[in-house]
Amino acid sequence: MGGGRRLSESGLIARYFAPLAVADGARGLRDDAVSLTAPAGHELVVTTDTLVAGVHFFGTEPAGTLAAKALRVNLSDLTAKGAEPIGYLLSLALQEDWTEAWLAAFTGGLDKDQKLYGWSLLGGDTTKTPGPLTITVTAIGSLPAGEYVSRDTARAGDALFVSGTIGDAALGLRLAAGSGDAASTLGIAGAAAELIARYHLPHPPVAITRALRAHARAAMDISDGLAGDCGKMCAASGVSARIDTSEVPLSEPVRRALGANPALLRTVLTGGDDYQVLAAVPEETAAAFAAAAKAAGVRVTRIGGVEAGDGGVTVQGPDGEPMTLTHTSYSHF
Amino acid sequence: MGGGRRLSESGLIARYFAPLAVADGARGLRDDAVSLTAPAGHELVVTTDTLVAGVHFFGTEPAGTLAAKALRVNLSDLTAKGAEPIGYLLSLALQEDWTEAWLAAFTGGLDKDQKLYGWSLLGGDTTKTPGPLTITVTAIGSLPAGEYVSRDTARAGDALFVSGTIGDAALGLRLAAGSGDAASTLGIAGAAAELIARYHLPHPPVAITRALRAHARAAMDISDGLAGDCGKMCAASGVSARIDTSEVPLSEPVRRALGANPALLRTVLTGGDDYQVLAAVPEETAAAFAAAAKAAGVRVTRIGGVEAGDGGVTVQGPDGEPMTLTHTSYSHF
Repeated sequence: MGGGRRLSESGLIARYFAPLAVADGARGLRDDAVSLTAPAGHELVVTTDTLVAGVHFFGTEPAGTLAAKALRVNLSDLTAKGAEPIGYLLSLALQEDWTEAWLAAFTGGLDKDQKLYGWSLLGGDTTKTPGPLTITVTAIGSLPAGEYVSRDTARAGDALFVSGTIGDAALGLRLAAGSGDAASTLGIAGAAAELIARYHLPHPPVAITRALRAHARAAMDISDGLAGDCGKMCAASGVSARIDTSEVPLSEPVRRALGANPALLRTVLTGGDDYQVLAAVPEETAAAFAAAAKAAGVRVTRIGGVEAGDGGVTVQGPDGEPMTLTHTSYSHF
Repeated sequence: MGGGRRLSESGLIARYFAPLAVADGARGLRDDAVSLTAPAGHELVVTTDTLVAGVHFFGTEPAGTLAAKALRVNLSDLTAKGAEPIGYLLSLALQEDWTEAWLAAFTGGLDKDQKLYGWSLLGGDTTKTPGPLTITVTAIGSLPAGEYVSRDTARAGDALFVSGTIGDAALGLRLAAGSGDAASTLGIAGAAAELIARYHLPHPPVAITRALRAHARAAMDISDGLAGDCGKMCAASGVSARIDTSEVPLSEPVRRALGANPALLRTVLTGGDDYQVLAAVPEETAAAFAAAAKAAGVRVTRIGGVEAGDGGVTVQGPDGEPMTLTHTSYSHF
């Protein structure tokens, strides 16, 4: 395909991808597969996520930002399971009109981000597509054997924690899409770029893994909205939960936006793209969890608790009354 | 998306995918990731391949056949590395107009094929796409630690073997696409369906793994054409190779087609989709390799040898003279 104008697939691998395959088992991407061994006493954790242009991202973002986002949405899953990243496989379906400049920027973004988080490209597949750019990352991490943090093990009486702040990316998406309220009317004109950046590029709290393994009973990453994802944890664990919105950690711009338009609270709670961690922690280790997270540099906030029964999630609004959330999470499906 | 007409993503996972997640670590697909440990003394082997409708398949094939093909093109890579399959992650980007009937047939195909080869769905991601159906499988296998069969270790003096027969799928593709010669003019009218089926559904020689690990120096699967893939092995290993076309194993229909149209030999050698194994085997273990493969029920045929230098692949034609192959392999890229 493409004749002399383009590099061949093998030329492209050699020039752009092989330099990213720094792990031993990756064999410099010269083979059809990669070999892997978990560190002694550890098990591997594997997860995969696909991003499709026009569905999961606009398609107009800088290539380097897309690359980092594709890695981080997977890193977020590893983090929430208590795993440290080892490496990733990348399947890239490129549109006909891809350019080497775009690919150079994309792989530059991979390089920068994998160095930041200390992992390596391991393998992959590059193909063309008559459809939109489609990026699938399969992420591999590891953790001490038996310490995987599941989402289906929350118990009544556990405290519910979240990392970071909630809603920044959801408001960023509204601003980026030009829908909803203009930043100026929300009194956050100066912070719009910051929120939009939080949508384009998540910052999963990777330093929290040890605290999760040591103290959490259950955890998952928050990708489709706090309320809906908490509901998924409840359904998987056979429990209910209560979230007190007055305790949900908000950034300063989000707090100001809510001041200008209180109805945005629903977007904050259900909008998704947070890529923070939701954790159920036994009451007796809650203080130790908070201390360990803080020592690791990760802000965690207690937002409610796990309760008996299968009543789903009760979200207690600013007025102290339960909120009715028609859509509890964002679905890309 | 889709309102009440469709299952939610979680409903869809529970109904169609969770029953396929039979491995322990898959956690019934109720979590965000899967945990994995290689069997004692083993390492894991991981590979990924993407199939895009309109690029890698027609899109009109039965869903169950597509499912099996997506698994087998990955199984082929594991096989050529000497690895036995454990499980796979599946990323499925569905078009807007997908139906439950299609998904039921697709997952039915996965179920049947994973039982046939003894592996399990481990995890995945389902999303929608405004583009063509896109299927990414990340396959995980295992082999005794240190016994990974690489492609870059062939040495001058090694014998070259292939498994199965070559060219069936390439002729099948010509027939399926309605291009090239009609089956009737090739004298293979009765065998057209058989060749087309070989294109739609490969049969990787999974039983060969032990023989490869015990006796081969280098191996890879043949997916883009024998001549081109042999060239890739040579380039990776820093050697040359000679293939004697009169030794290349052909099925009876392919032999008859070549009798009717000798020019099809180029398609046979370069057309791809064989999903057989190319192996470089030291002269001193060649007989043992052939015997071990035969004992495992896999036909292997010696087709040439590895030579010194970086002269690429010399394909010796039926007249004993080197053939000039303008395109040595099929590129989906």
